[in-house]
Amino acid sequence: MTRHYNFCAGPAALPTPVLERAREELLDYQGRGLSVMEMSHRSPEFVAIAERAEADLRELLAIPDDYRVLFLQGGASLQFAMLPMNLLGSGGSANFLHTGIWAKKAIAEAEHLGYPVHVAASSESNGHVRVPRQEEIVLSADAAYLHYTANETIGGLAFDYVPQARRPDGSEVPLVCDMSSSILSGPIDVSRFGVIYAGAQKNVGPAGLTLVIVRDDLLGTAVPGTPTLFDYRALADAGSMVNTPPTFAWYLAGLVFQWLKHDIGGLEAMAAINAGKAGTLYSAIDASGFYSNPIAVPNRSSMNVPFVLADEQLNEAFLAEADRAGLLNLKGHRSVGGMRASLYNAVPAAGVDALVDFMSDFEHRRG
Amino acid sequence: MTRHYNFCAGPAALPTPVLERAREELLDYQGRGLSVMEMSHRSPEFVAIAERAEADLRELLAIPDDYRVLFLQGGASLQFAMLPMNLLGSGGSANFLHTGIWAKKAIAEAEHLGYPVHVAASSESNGHVRVPRQEEIVLSADAAYLHYTANETIGGLAFDYVPQARRPDGSEVPLVCDMSSSILSGPIDVSRFGVIYAGAQKNVGPAGLTLVIVRDDLLGTAVPGTPTLFDYRALADAGSMVNTPPTFAWYLAGLVFQWLKHDIGGLEAMAAINAGKAGTLYSAIDASGFYSNPIAVPNRSSMNVPFVLADEQLNEAFLAEADRAGLLNLKGHRSVGGMRASLYNAVPAAGVDALVDFMSDFEHRRG
Repeated sequence: MTRHYNFCAGPAALPTPVLERAREELLDYQGRGLSVMEMSHRSPEFVAIAERAEADLRELLAIPDDYRVLFLQGGASLQFAMLPMNLLGSGGSANFLHTGIWAKKAIAEAEHLGYPVHVAASSESNGHVRVPRQEEIVLSADAAYLHYTANETIGGLAFDYVPQARRPDGSEVPLVCDMSSSILSGPIDVSRFGVIYAGAQKNVGPAGLTLVIVRDDLLGTAVPGTPTLFDYRALADAGSMVNTPPTFAWYLAGLVFQWLKHDIGGLEAMAAINAGKAGTLYSAIDASGFYSNPIAVPNRSSMNVPFVLADEQLNEAFLAEADRAGLLNLKGHRSVGGMRASLYNAVPAAGVDALVDFMSDFEHRRG
Repeated sequence: MTRHYNFCAGPAALPTPVLERAREELLDYQGRGLSVMEMSHRSPEFVAIAERAEADLRELLAIPDDYRVLFLQGGASLQFAMLPMNLLGSGGSANFLHTGIWAKKAIAEAEHLGYPVHVAASSESNGHVRVPRQEEIVLSADAAYLHYTANETIGGLAFDYVPQARRPDGSEVPLVCDMSSSILSGPIDVSRFGVIYAGAQKNVGPAGLTLVIVRDDLLGTAVPGTPTLFDYRALADAGSMVNTPPTFAWYLAGLVFQWLKHDIGGLEAMAAINAGKAGTLYSAIDASGFYSNPIAVPNRSSMNVPFVLADEQLNEAFLAEADRAGLLNLKGHRSVGGMRASLYNAVPAAGVDALVDFMSDFEHRRG
């Protein structure tokens, strides 16, 4: 068995100890004679798994008691529809910060559903290489919430601050954040947010699970006619089990939380490791005349590092040689081209060192 | 490692060879150095897995070319909302056959969303022990489709025929079938249906995956404002990859399809095995004065067999002793009590033999 370094943007690398544990238990969970996949979601065994996962996540992120944690399906993209349906029940408009492809998709879905939309600030004019400053953000008078994307997975653009969400009259509205590609990469202050959501397939677990962390006062405000499985209130009241949840993905997420707590030592330690990894790669890019990254330094993502070669003709050779060297999935998103190295929690520092060595060697031979 | 006999109604038993194969490949899929869970859904490796699974499912069910197969999230319950949103775009009402708890949930969700609903026939008056006869089914003049539940997982009530869906004027409307707990238990004639759907966690794979088989002419008829991830047209056009699908569940479903083809020999063979299993258990129940099942013989489910003991005081003892004997998850649904043995494809005939032996022994000792 070989484990290569996997820089995929998602579904992404999982910690090897997590997969080893899952493998060990795959046919017989703790002597019960069946797989976690084969358990009723209402069995004592699975309920214990589910509750443990939530408790560990609450501890890792220091989630206050007045927030509910939902383990859902559908991906972050389904939240693009669920959010306005849950938060616009009393009218008003959805406000957005537009910082790239994922923010744009969230905006487009709210518009598709026919809700009033206001773009409170945009980095489109600078080519999405610098996030809007706080003073550039202007909410509409009827703003019901402000949505932003903490880390643009494709663009590699990250917020270096948590925006304030105030209407022109100074009143505060809930801040809603898509943290799909940055959640659990370091500590956050959950109390600043109304809703935090994240597709699992970067830092949480396998694809098919979505985390939603929602403040109590935002339950029960859904637009009439919202499907039951879209309604945060119904989902929270049922402990995310209105119907059968994605049990195996939930279990794996729980193993990842355990790994973060016990193998890594919590999110401060994870953040330090991630800063080291990103520092290594950006330093190598900046020290080179051959590789480049376009993002303003304060807004560079520590999770997704897009870069281009000085000679695009060499892209295919770079990818092929990297793959043969055991450095997988470095191709940039099809909408932007070039390269992208995703450095999620499960990518070890040794993987980034190996990537930087390969990049240096490739530059010397081919650059 | 021990593998007990698992009679859970869902998430349910998976074939042991499928889990063994998954375990073997869990950290390193075919020498690629990563898990299936860690692959981009757009990678050549995963696209091959996905396409193979669909091709095998098409072969097993002999799905005609004018049907699309969707691999979705959200469970069958999400289809309760998606179906009217997709099929009532040109108006009309959703018609239903009411045969138990799952049919009722489908009806309730369509009503919750505000769509016109007509119950074309119901077995409520007979306590859901016999399905409506064809001549009892009366669609509304404005029926847009007829929905029914092929197998009521909780009640253990199964249709022994495929209903005709004709309005009073004789015109035919699409027949929509929830096959969550019976799909792949035997051959079906897909061409009789407009939409077939099924949560995976009984006969297909792990929870978190939903199969939808939809006829081409029913794409593109969604109600305006339907969320993008609800729209069969958008989902079909994107090959079920509008966003990241539940890749590992899709892969496991593919392994189950391979097992059905190669280990079992196809759905005719599977149906014969299932008929044998159900026959063994119903014969034991009927030959006993201690166990009973209330369902009319032609409508007895071969997948879910509810039964009660003559003395309900013995329920807890029955369940505890069965569990110690390695016969797991025989407790009936909390809404009906008693016992339920689910005999899905992955439950071997030897498991049913062991159950019948245990039941006989328990009756002699305690009955």
